[in-house]
This record gives sequence, structure tokens and C-alpha cells, in this order.
Amino acid sequence: MRTLRQPENAYVYTLSAEHPPIATIPCDETVLIETIDAFEGRLQSPEDLYSQKCPGPPRANPQTGPFFIEGAEPGDTLIVSIKEIEPAEDFAITALIPEFGGLTGTSYTATLDTPLPESTRILPIEGKSLRFSDELSLPLAPFIGTLGTAPDLEAISSLVPGYWGGNMDCVETAAGSRVWLPVHNEGALFFIGDAHARQGDGEVTGVAAEMSARVTLSFSLRKQHSIPWPRIETEEHLMVVGSARPLEDAARIAWKSLIDWLKEDFDFDPLEAYQLLGLAGEMRLGNMVDPNYSMVAKLAKRWLPPKPKKK
Amino acid sequence: MRTLRQPENAYVYTLSAEHPPIATIPCDETVLIETIDAFEGRLQSPEDLYSQKCPGPPRANPQTGPFFIEGAEPGDTLIVSIKEIEPAEDFAITALIPEFGGLTGTSYTATLDTPLPESTRILPIEGKSLRFSDELSLPLAPFIGTLGTAPDLEAISSLVPGYWGGNMDCVETAAGSRVWLPVHNEGALFFIGDAHARQGDGEVTGVAAEMSARVTLSFSLRKQHSIPWPRIETEEHLMVVGSARPLEDAARIAWKSLIDWLKEDFDFDPLEAYQLLGLAGEMRLGNMVDPNYSMVAKLAKRWLPPKPKKK
Amino acid sequence: MRTLRQPENAYVYTLSAEHPPIATIPCDETVLIETIDAFEGRLQSPEDLYSQKCPGPPRANPQTGPFFIEGAEPGDTLIVSIKEIEPAEDFAITALIPEFGGLTGTSYTATLDTPLPESTRILPIEGKSLRFSDELSLPLAPFIGTLGTAPDLEAISSLVPGYWGGNMDCVETAAGSRVWLPVHNEGALFFIGDAHARQGDGEVTGVAAEMSARVTLSFSLRKQHSIPWPRIETEEHLMVVGSARPLEDAARIAWKSLIDWLKEDFDFDPLEAYQLLGLAGEMRLGNMVDPNYSMVAKLAKRWLPPKPKKK
Amino acid sequence: MRTLRQPENAYVYTLSAEHPPIATIPCDETVLIETIDAFEGRLQSPEDLYSQKCPGPPRANPQTGPFFIEGAEPGDTLIVSIKEIEPAEDFAITALIPEFGGLTGTSYTATLDTPLPESTRILPIEGKSLRFSDELSLPLAPFIGTLGTAPDLEAISSLVPGYWGGNMDCVETAAGSRVWLPVHNEGALFFIGDAHARQGDGEVTGVAAEMSARVTLSFSLRKQHSIPWPRIETEEHLMVVGSARPLEDAARIAWKSLIDWLKEDFDFDPLEAYQLLGLAGEMRLGNMVDPNYSMVAKLAKRWLPPKPKKK
Repeated sequence: MRTLRQPENAYVYTLSAEHPPIATIPCDETVLIETIDAFEGRLQSPEDLYSQKCPGPPRANPQTGPFFIEGAEPGDTLIVSIKEIEPAEDFAITALIPEFGGLTGTSYTATLDTPLPESTRILPIEGKSLRFSDELSLPLAPFIGTLGTAPDLEAISSLVPGYWGGNMDCVETAAGSRVWLPVHNEGALFFIGDAHARQGDGEVTGVAAEMSARVTLSFSLRKQHSIPWPRIETEEHLMVVGSARPLEDAARIAWKSLIDWLKEDFDFDPLEAYQLLGLAGEMRLGNMVDPNYSMVAKLAKRWLPPKPKKK
Repeated sequence: MRTLRQPENAYVYTLSAEHPPIATIPCDETVLIETIDAFEGRLQSPEDLYSQKCPGPPRANPQTGPFFIEGAEPGDTLIVSIKEIEPAEDFAITALIPEFGGLTGTSYTATLDTPLPESTRILPIEGKSLRFSDELSLPLAPFIGTLGTAPDLEAISSLVPGYWGGNMDCVETAAGSRVWLPVHNEGALFFIGDAHARQGDGEVTGVAAEMSARVTLSFSLRKQHSIPWPRIETEEHLMVVGSARPLEDAARIAWKSLIDWLKEDFDFDPLEAYQLLGLAGEMRLGNMVDPNYSMVAKLAKRWLPPKPKKK
Repeated sequence: MRTLRQPENAYVYTLSAEHPPIATIPCDETVLIETIDAFEGRLQSPEDLYSQKCPGPPRANPQTGPFFIEGAEPGDTLIVSIKEIEPAEDFAITALIPEFGGLTGTSYTATLDTPLPESTRILPIEGKSLRFSDELSLPLAPFIGTLGTAPDLEAISSLVPGYWGGNMDCVETAAGSRVWLPVHNEGALFFIGDAHARQGDGEVTGVAAEMSARVTLSFSLRKQHSIPWPRIETEEHLMVVGSARPLEDAARIAWKSLIDWLKEDFDFDPLEAYQLLGLAGEMRLGNMVDPNYSMVAKLAKRWLPPKPKKK
Repeated sequence: MRTLRQPENAYVYTLSAEHPPIATIPCDETVLIETIDAFEGRLQSPEDLYSQKCPGPPRANPQTGPFFIEGAEPGDTLIVSIKEIEPAEDFAITALIPEFGGLTGTSYTATLDTPLPESTRILPIEGKSLRFSDELSLPLAPFIGTLGTAPDLEAISSLVPGYWGGNMDCVETAAGSRVWLPVHNEGALFFIGDAHARQGDGEVTGVAAEMSARVTLSFSLRKQHSIPWPRIETEEHLMVVGSARPLEDAARIAWKSLIDWLKEDFDFDPLEAYQLLGLAGEMRLGNMVDPNYSMVAKLAKRWLPPKPKKK
């Protein structure tokens, strides 16, 4: 299995076709990709404060990539199968960053209030546990905060989630998931970073348990099938991530795209799918701190009709 | 066990201290309360359309109540223990109502678009199942859509959720839950209605599987302890429901009130609680269709410190 | 001219049909109504802080009323002609109130930040001027912050704007304006209060230059013509006030209701009206601090077709 | 006076440092820049529908530029003085575009409703007038819909307004205005396009009176002075444009940045400035249709203290 990593000091901060690919990956090759933590390794102790050690946005959330996926062409869908996510170090980091987070004034929800005090917190990884405090350990539940393809024409900060995927910060992009992403450029140009040892719904403080990681994954393509927003498939669920502000628009995007999926692949009438979601759909808060907020719409596969037409 | 019901044709459509109580209930008496469906029994077949059979808001979502809870005084918290919710009939109803729902223009999100076609759908209840279509049955998962206390001074439509509870449409107000509500009037003045046979997260079509029901419950008080927003407690979780627009404000209210709870009853420092929620909090979409939207913030009790100071 | 005032210590804090009318007014009688300031006269010097002197919501923003307007029946429109607004005292008051205002965390946009410091500021009224500081006087520009009719069934806090009018805090409800309000109860049940010596767009601090006032006005009816949202007419403009959250929904309501007006009274095709507003409509921020935010959509009368069919 | 135009068929659709400058302009040279209409000249008659003639986003809203402004360095502020905006043709174009606009479901406010019918409308320019219909002409009121500098690192669609300026669609960027833009790259890299013959507040249909234009302007620099959001100065007003969703965040950004300006250049205490805006600030809806919505906060210069410290 090939191990792929970013050249030293060459992390990228935008998802964009302007970066040269760092490797070409054929479909179905399983690769191990190394990602660095969202603070680029600059926070190593409680004394290392974000505002002092880090350059600040948009020079944040460094990505590994882009990867050129063989055979991917605009109009296809790239399917990323995540097999394993392993911590690369024996700790994760969380922090409170001034004017960032869900329960504080921010650069968008601008206030005149005094911001919360800044702090950095080291969270030791002990086997399958993450130590939160002397009294409490939480289970490790690793997932990828940021993964996506280069968008069409634009170069978007790796802090922003959108139709290209990006910084969705959704716990569903974990081992066992197949993440569908739209292809807008030759080779798809896949980026990955921002692994989290675990995270609460919404990433409400703005920062998860950030870690460097080794991610095992493989790629496949659904040719000539374009999707407007990222989809996630597990054994149990069909899911769509919508990212927008306010949160209800993120929700609307996710629900509507899930209805589109049910129509495309399972022959649903849209209003029938709408009513099924009204009775059996699930929706979790993905993130409420990034430049776009994310909501995850889900339908359990056990409610699908027995014989899907295609797929 | 006393059975309590609304006098015929005397349903109330506001949560308010202006309605005379229909019964007095001492704490810890277990009672059975009958509720009528949100359409007041007017929709019995697919031919019965909402716009033709129902008077429209605010004459909608009829409540049973108010109930005067003995000993409840302003500044207390009323704790409602829901023991059982049984369908009163062998069917539930769902519907598409013009300019109402999550994926259509509404009276608030006003558009010039042609609305979705109106329809009514009868969902047979067969044992523990709800028949959605010839091919699909869904498990019955009954809960109370609307329960609350009379607010302070105001008379609020039973369609609106808020600090008084009301039309939260959250699946968590089900058998096994203890729902905490603020007391703003002598006797608390408790209202209940709008039982649902089941519902997807967000009640995205605007209408769940509406049913008439028999609800078994009892009441207790936490004296001289006031809460700003409704709380829900189960074996597994502490939860707060925030209701506002846009959804991120509903989320902020819910998270902050959960932090308040952790501070009051479990001696948490607020920023410590904030970071714990950032790593272990859960948040589900309650409703995205009512005049206020609802989000449910949760923390699993297993993450609480071993010896809470009080409670 | 009759002078009408609230009985001492009997101010009302909700717009509701449950309050007995304090006077009956025939159409076209010109009356002088006295209103008290939003703080009920409790803040008289910089030492009087809101949190110490005032009971807090919903016991705030006291109204004069209700007035029973002769001949008004549900389904009519009440037209309020504002003729003059005079300060009743030689000062106005503004304040910073904790967790209230547009640039601070609030009870809805809940944060963990330290709130802004509280303060009270007395603004002397000197002839046609309002003294803001030693260096700056601003022109007096009096208007009514709160006016409305009792809503249908509900009793709504006088702090909340909505379809019934209420606490819109829009500078357009000034002398020379005709304010159209929906009639939902016999006699319309009109309330008025919260006069402002002047205010910036959005009332961004949460508090205008609050004053007690003497308001001269008269009433007329448009029989059997119901309007969904308040309208304002001046010599120059047709206007609609939409109140909701987020602000874009307030805007959508206002634009759509203005299109409805153009259709009803000026024979416009809705899409023609939409495009005219796209090129010539005006929209100002009314308030961004009350429980619903308000936007004011306007069309200059000079763009109307020469011969309106009716009106 | 030099006339500058984009090389044929080389319009750019992103604001980005990746495009090579098409000209270098020294400060204080007055230049005439030609801009093409937002539809790139593809809509010439009512038969030309957007969905048939145009490639769709992000290949829309073509810009002229970038221009390298001599001496501009990161951390400076670029001040663009707009002197004249002349129509380049004898007509403007407006349109209804499916799933785009303020009163219809969109790609963000996703609904299942049937969209509005598509249409294209030619608006003859007759002297100083714009012909809307046989009965109505509106005054020409030309302004620039899109102008900005290349953002930091990112390449952003010319359809999006933000801290870099961009597609603000604010009528204030007209002849007589000085537009302040942040400099994030050597030479500032200025882009301009999307001239409008006139527009209503909010650009509520999504499309103004789009036209090709000849724009006369000059540039100056405020060295080593960085601004977070675009500012506009006229004889009468200081203004800031905030762009975000929901609209209240756009408003918060604009108000707060205006307070920052009052503090920086006029020695205001922030809370004093906040209260002055509360009584004398103005706020107009810029746009409510672009990927970020825009609000314009204003303070009349006549309320400023007599002797500003610096500036």
C-alpha cells in the first residue's frame, strides 16, 4: 500500500485546480494518506495559543492533495471509500479561539461584546480513548473533517464547506463510509485533511479534537452521473450533506438532494419521497461554526423499496 | 386512574392563563389524558382536504387543558413524566398543506411560486406498525407534539413553540421522558395535544402522522427553581429544546441552556461544559416548519461527573 | 378634541381582545391620545438602570388602549391617520440593556460572552432638537414605535411586531402617514405606545430616544377588505412592513404583500409588479432587535400607472 | 485618457490573483474602463432566455480586469473614485431566471415548488430614462454592481460579494463615490463589471437593468491601513457594506465596521458610536439574491464631530 503525504511545508489552504497534483491514484488502489492537524502542528501545549502561533485564516486547515484520480472527468461522481483513520500522534488538541465558535460573537455574527478567553487544551489519546480531563475519558471516534474535490473555476478556502465537500466537519465521513463528491475537473483533484479524534454535533466550540492522522482509502467513479451536493453511504443509511447559512437553508439543500437521490436511484416520486422523509427522515447538526453551516439528512436503507431499479 | 378529556367542542387553541382549568391534578397522581388529533378529527379520508375542512390558523392544533397542578407556583419547574402514549384510533393522518412545510414557500418564507398540490393521506395503524404504503410499514413511535404551560401574560397559539414548551414537535417527548417546563402562573396551567404516531426529524412536510391519543402521565414540581427553556430527561440523556428562527438561534438557545443546567446541577464551569459539548454533545433537528424552529441539544448522562453535587 | 389616556397604573403589556376597551372612537373623530414611554417613566436619570428599575419582559412597553373603533368588524381594514406627535416631556431616554440589541449576544442569539455594560442616557429635547451630547444635537423626528390591533385569538406581548402591527419600530409611522391594520375583532381594539423622539434604522442598540407623547390621530375603515400585513401610505409612497426572523423572511413578506397591494388596487400582474420592484422598489431596515425583525418595502407613487382601477 | 478593456473572449469569472493583470494603472491617472453586461451580451431580445443562451454559474458576470495598481501592497487600502458611468448601448436587459431571485425557491432556499416562468425583457435607454413599459419610464441611475480586489489566497466567483467587495449590487457604488477596498495582493488586482442602468433595493428579482458600460475612474491608496470590509464615501455619507447570510449578519458586519471606522478616524468610543448609530444610523437593503446578501450601513457626515483627529 502506497503511503502518500504532502511535501514538507507545502500544505495547501484552498481546494482548487490551480495546485499541481501530488500523486495520481487509479481507481480501486487502496492508499494510505497522511494528514496533518488543522493547526499544522503549531499547538503542542496549553501555552501555545492560536492567536500567537498560527497565521490565521485563510492560512489554516492545511490539506493533503490534490490527488489526481485516474479516469475522473467533469460530470462524473467520485466515490471515496474510507477504510481506516488512525491517529498519527498520541494526542489531539482542542482550543477556544477568539471570535470563533457557536456561542460567541464572530466575524460574521459581529458584536461589540468582550470575546471569550483564549485557551489550548491537549487531549491525550490512550488506546481507544481520548482523555478530556482527570475524571473523564471519551471514546475515540475518528473521522475526516475536510475532504472534497476542486470546485468549478473557484479556489475555495479549506475552511469552507460547500457543494464540493470541503470542511463539512460531519462525523459521518468516518471509516466504513462511502463519500460521493462531484467531479468538476479532470482527475477530480481530491483534497483531504482536518482529521478529528472525535467531535460533538455542530463542533460548537469551533474546534474538535484535532489530530494528525493516517487515512486508508480507495476511490471509484460513477461515470457520467453528476451530483449537486455531497452524498454519504453506509451500510445503514443514505445521507446528504447540505452546507449554507442560515441552518434552515443547509437543511433544505440536504433534504431536497436526498429526494433527488431517491428519485434517481430508487424511482421515487418526489412528493412520495418528501412524505417518507416527513415520517422517517433523520437530520443531525453537522457544524454551526464554519463559514457555511452543515446539516446531514439521512434515510435508513431499511425503508427503501425492495428492488431499486438501478444503482 | 382518572381519565381526563376536554369538554366536547371546547378545545382551546392558545396556551394562556385566560382559559379556566378543566381539572386539578395533585402531584404524583397518575392520570390518563385524552388528546384529539391536530386536525380536530376533520380529516378522515383522502377526500378531506385541509383547506376545505379546517378553519385554518390560529384555529388549529386543539389542546386538552389547562390542568391546574396543585402546589405549582410561579418560579417553580413543572416536571411531566410521560408513561404511555396509546393511539385512540386505528389510523393516523398526514397531509400536504399549501404554503406550509419545509420545502415549499410559506407565509413567512413568502414566494411567488406555485405551491405544492394539496393532499391528505390516511396511515392505518396495525399493531405496532404504521402503514405508509402498500410496500412499506414503519414502526409506531408515538410522542407528544405539543405540551406546555401557560406563558407569562401572553396567550400564544398552540402552533408555536417557545420557552413555555408548546408545539415543539420533538420526538423526545415520548414515553419514558421527564419534561421540565417553567411555571409562570399559579397551578402551572398545563396543556397537551398533537400526538404523533411517528415523525421524521424536522417534521419536514409540516405534518407528522397525526393521531388522537390516550396519554398516561404524572406531575411533580421542583420548587423555587426556574428554568428559561424546556428540558427533557431520559435514562440516557439530559436534553434542552431551543425554539427560534433562524435554526442557529434555536441551537444557541439549546446549547446555552444545557450549559446552564450543567452548571446548576453538576457544578460545571461554563467553559468546561462548552468544551465537553464540543466533543460529546449531540444535536438533532426537532422541527423546521413551525413559527419557531426547534433544535434539541443533548448530553449523554454517562459523560457526567460521578457525584453531582445536588439534584 | 377629546384627550384619551390610560387609567393610572393600568397600562397593558399585550395586544389582546381580553382587555376591556378604555374608550370608543367613531370613525373620523380626531382624538389626542397620550402615551407613556417604553420604560413607564422608571428611568429619569443616568443612575436609573433598566435592570434595577424595570420589571423586565413581558412587563415592558406599556400601551394605551385598547380603543374600540365604531363599526370595525373582522375582515375590515382599520386606517389610522397620524396627524401630530408631540413630546410630553422635555427629554427622551436611551439606554444599553444587557443581552439586548443588535451588536451583542441576546436571549435568542445566545452566547457565553460577557455582555456590554449597562447604561442610561438622558437626551434633552430642546425645541425641534434632541441633544445627544455636548457637541451634537439631532433633529427631532418623532414617530410611534408600537401601534396595532388585537390579533386573532392570541394575546401578544407589546414587544413583538407581527401581522397585527405591534412593536414595528419603523420611522414611517409618523405624522402624515396612514397606517393600515387588519381588523380581527369587533371594534378593531387599537393599541398605541412607545413613541420615539427619533431613531436610527434598525434601532440597533435596542432602544430609541424613548419618550412619552401626545398623539393626534383619527380612524377610518376600509370595509370588507382584509390585509395580511400592515401597510403604510404617505403622499409619496406605498409601503408594507414585514416582521419575521431572519431578516430575509421579513423582506420577503414585505415585498410579497406590496405586490399583493399593487395587484388588488392597481391591477398589476404579480410578475410585472415583481419586476417593477426589482427596478424601483425601496427597502429600509425597520428594526433588528425585537423578537421579530422588521423590513419596510416601498414603492414611490410616481411609478404607479395613471388610472388605478379602484381604491 | 486611456481606454481599457478586456481582450475579446477573455472575460474572467473569478476575483483572484491567478489571472494576469491586463493593465497597470498609476495612482491618480484617470482611466476609462469598458465593462460588458452580466449576461456577456448573450441576451439581446425577449426570445433569448438565460437557460438557453448562457452557460450558467460560475461562468457568469464577466469582469474586466485585473488591473495592477501601482504601489498597492498587502495591508493598504485601495480607494476607487468613480467619476462617470455611461451606458455603452441603447438598452439594458432584465430577466426572470428559474430558481434565482428573492421571491422564489433557489439553489440555497431549496424547495419542491414549480419555479416562476423564465423571461427576458429589453429596457430601452432613452436619454436619461429607462423604458420599463409603454406607460412607464424610470430615471437612469447607473452604478457598478461588481467591483473588488483579489481576495487573499482564494479565487471567488464574481457572483459573490464579500470582504473583497465583489458582487455587492449596491446602488451606492455610483458616480461621485469613493469605494475603499482592502488590498491583499501586490498591485491590489482590481476587477470591475456588472454595470446596472438602475436597480431597486435588494435587486429582488435577482436581475437589475443590466448593461454594458464605460466607467471613468481613478485610484488612490491609503498606505498601511487595512480595512476588514468595503467602505464607501460620498459628500454626504460614510458607509460600509456587509455581505453575509442571513441578512442580520450582513447588518451586524456593516454596523460594526462602521463603528470601527468612527473609532479609527474620528476618535469615537465604540459604545458612543453605537448609540449614535442607534439614533442616526441608516441602513438600506443592498441585495437579497446573491450567494451573500448585502446591507449598507450609513452615517451622515453632518453628525460627525467638527474636528476629526486624522484622516
